[in-house]
Amino acid sequence: MNIDSVDFFYASMPEVTLEADGSQDALLVRVTAGGHIGWGECEASPLTSIAAFVTPRSHGVCQPVADSVLGERIDSPADILRIARNVGRNSMDLLQAGHTWSGIEIALWDLLGKAKEQPVWQLLGYERTYAKLPYASMLMGDTPQGTLDRARLARANGFRAVKFGWGSYGTGTAADDADHVAAAREGLGDDAQLLIDAGQIWGDDVEAAAARLEALEKAHATWLEEPFLPHAYVAHSQLAGRARTVGIAGGEGAHTVHMATNLIDYGGVRFIQVDAARIGGIGASKAVADHAVQRGVTYVNHTFTSHLALSASMQPYAGLADHRICEYPVEPKPVALAISSNHILLDENGEVRAPDAPGLGIDVDLAGLVPYLRHVEISIDHERVYTSPDVPHRVSEVV
Amino acid sequence: MNIDSVDFFYASMPEVTLEADGSQDALLVRVTAGGHIGWGECEASPLTSIAAFVTPRSHGVCQPVADSVLGERIDSPADILRIARNVGRNSMDLLQAGHTWSGIEIALWDLLGKAKEQPVWQLLGYERTYAKLPYASMLMGDTPQGTLDRARLARANGFRAVKFGWGSYGTGTAADDADHVAAAREGLGDDAQLLIDAGQIWGDDVEAAAARLEALEKAHATWLEEPFLPHAYVAHSQLAGRARTVGIAGGEGAHTVHMATNLIDYGGVRFIQVDAARIGGIGASKAVADHAVQRGVTYVNHTFTSHLALSASMQPYAGLADHRICEYPVEPKPVALAISSNHILLDENGEVRAPDAPGLGIDVDLAGLVPYLRHVEISIDHERVYTSPDVPHRVSEVV
Repeated sequence: MNIDSVDFFYASMPEVTLEADGSQDALLVRVTAGGHIGWGECEASPLTSIAAFVTPRSHGVCQPVADSVLGERIDSPADILRIARNVGRNSMDLLQAGHTWSGIEIALWDLLGKAKEQPVWQLLGYERTYAKLPYASMLMGDTPQGTLDRARLARANGFRAVKFGWGSYGTGTAADDADHVAAAREGLGDDAQLLIDAGQIWGDDVEAAAARLEALEKAHATWLEEPFLPHAYVAHSQLAGRARTVGIAGGEGAHTVHMATNLIDYGGVRFIQVDAARIGGIGASKAVADHAVQRGVTYVNHTFTSHLALSASMQPYAGLADHRICEYPVEPKPVALAISSNHILLDENGEVRAPDAPGLGIDVDLAGLVPYLRHVEISIDHERVYTSPDVPHRVSEVV
Repeated sequence: MNIDSVDFFYASMPEVTLEADGSQDALLVRVTAGGHIGWGECEASPLTSIAAFVTPRSHGVCQPVADSVLGERIDSPADILRIARNVGRNSMDLLQAGHTWSGIEIALWDLLGKAKEQPVWQLLGYERTYAKLPYASMLMGDTPQGTLDRARLARANGFRAVKFGWGSYGTGTAADDADHVAAAREGLGDDAQLLIDAGQIWGDDVEAAAARLEALEKAHATWLEEPFLPHAYVAHSQLAGRARTVGIAGGEGAHTVHMATNLIDYGGVRFIQVDAARIGGIGASKAVADHAVQRGVTYVNHTFTSHLALSASMQPYAGLADHRICEYPVEPKPVALAISSNHILLDENGEVRAPDAPGLGIDVDLAGLVPYLRHVEISIDHERVYTSPDVPHRVSEVV
């Protein structure tokens, strides 16, 4: 079969705030081929990613993503890899192309799984799935007491691993940060995993990050995430060399496979966190997972948005028993939940699994998304080059 | 003074082909502040870079570039660095932001130089400029004879250094490539520098690239450029370890300072090639130049477009006497030449220098560009979020 269409659905909350909460908008991708439908999601900046799909060609290796995708053959995972290579080559100088392609790639796996009646993890070569321990991602409180209260709430909600980050963390003194970390540990009790996310706050300042290590190790934090900019491998490696019990984590900013493998090979991270909706999709993520296994580094998904994105991000390591921890969007905005009619829920053990249903196993609910959809039009020289799909019409088509 | 406006002018040839010729379109940026005007250029994909400037916010660290730029104070180079950091942080998850910001950053240096009546290289701390040896960038011929003819033509036009690349290079056998390289050397004679550009053709396949080393060294090629993908440091380093006389070059794909310094520190390149219009502008390029000097690596500009981009790309190493070679757009399309009324020409020694006039020293000719301008309109929910500036009106304002 061949790719007949690629449609983008841009959804957002009525008001998007300055919170570090990536679930406030979404760019959903629908691909059709041979009468099958696949769904994916790009992370983030919907308008920019749409533009990268339809932009006029700049030259031979700065082509719109559409030109490497539409009409292409799609019968097997090898076809996805072939198209990925073409996008990489033909859109070499189009920086945003990686993010746009990621959502399309995810949709192609979903489509292929549905066509072959297999879950994506099986198409990736895994024979079974393993339960993952979801961690709740939360913003650091405004005060240590606030952080402590949130930690208690997360435990009460059944989470055995909790991540705190952003907010004031890293912006004040190391002593302030130590108070937050100690409060988080107190609120969690001794038997839960504590993860801390610095959100790139120290740029490449190794000393600033190193000043936080003692408090993190005293609180038995599992990892310190994104202390630095994603390409700052020298800084990552120096910090990793000075840490004893706490692992350095990172990788969500990777938009190529090499960016993530470099963070392992040169940055010395102990946890590699991959966002399938940025790195080039599920195939690219699986390549990183393979490399992580080889290097004895733990693979973790990065997901802060919908359960479609969650399923996509779980597939690449669904069959890895020893890679246990999983980022779980615990307080997503309504738009992120509205994307699908089913969700990946915690089981009686407080654990989650990649779905067994064909494809990604997530039922996209376009009708439920209607209140959040935004209509985009782009014209060049007064000729329309992009118009958002007509949704009521399309919904009836889909149903 | 404060930044009053940022305007984008998207210009292109009537027909943009699949040639690997980046001069077929351009995104010109005009910034105004305190009654002064600065000009810059983004490379490439104009529509996508415009979208990254105006896109609705996705969350706190996925903001449109505009939100970190408009209204900001701009009195000194330190202000440019401050805004660069804000763009980096506030648009962390907006992949295209680096390309969009690059053109704005260049325009800010031009504006600051004009306001202070100093050339940009002086603002960067250089006391004088040094003449650079321009190399002509040419596509490899369809046959070795074609390559030989082009090499002779380049010599006849006064060039003492010539680069060949793209076309069939790397796509056939190593023997075919060897014929082209030998033909290029024959056409150039013994007293000109020969440079070869592989355009990332081997991905991260070290053996494929290594199979070309013997022919390159036999022809005394100065460098082999971009054998691999820009993040493939392991492959770069392995190839560099196997090369004897030929240096590995790369860096044009860098969209952050660390990407370029990593190619030096981990990739073992002997020549670091920076496109100021991609890496984050002139300040980011200067940071790479400083690192290159420290590491004993030769800094080279990457420029395939206008003389505005050429001036911008020469500033970061204008004052470095030992970094001699300079990419010079030898066959640009008419749109690239139309951008300015003056150009950086070869002197009697066949050499070029960064201009001494204030700012970038390039007079942008908006009126001359009118035939090439493309009009962009973007609407979200039927509300216009972007319209290309009204040019005839603006021209009269500028003049």
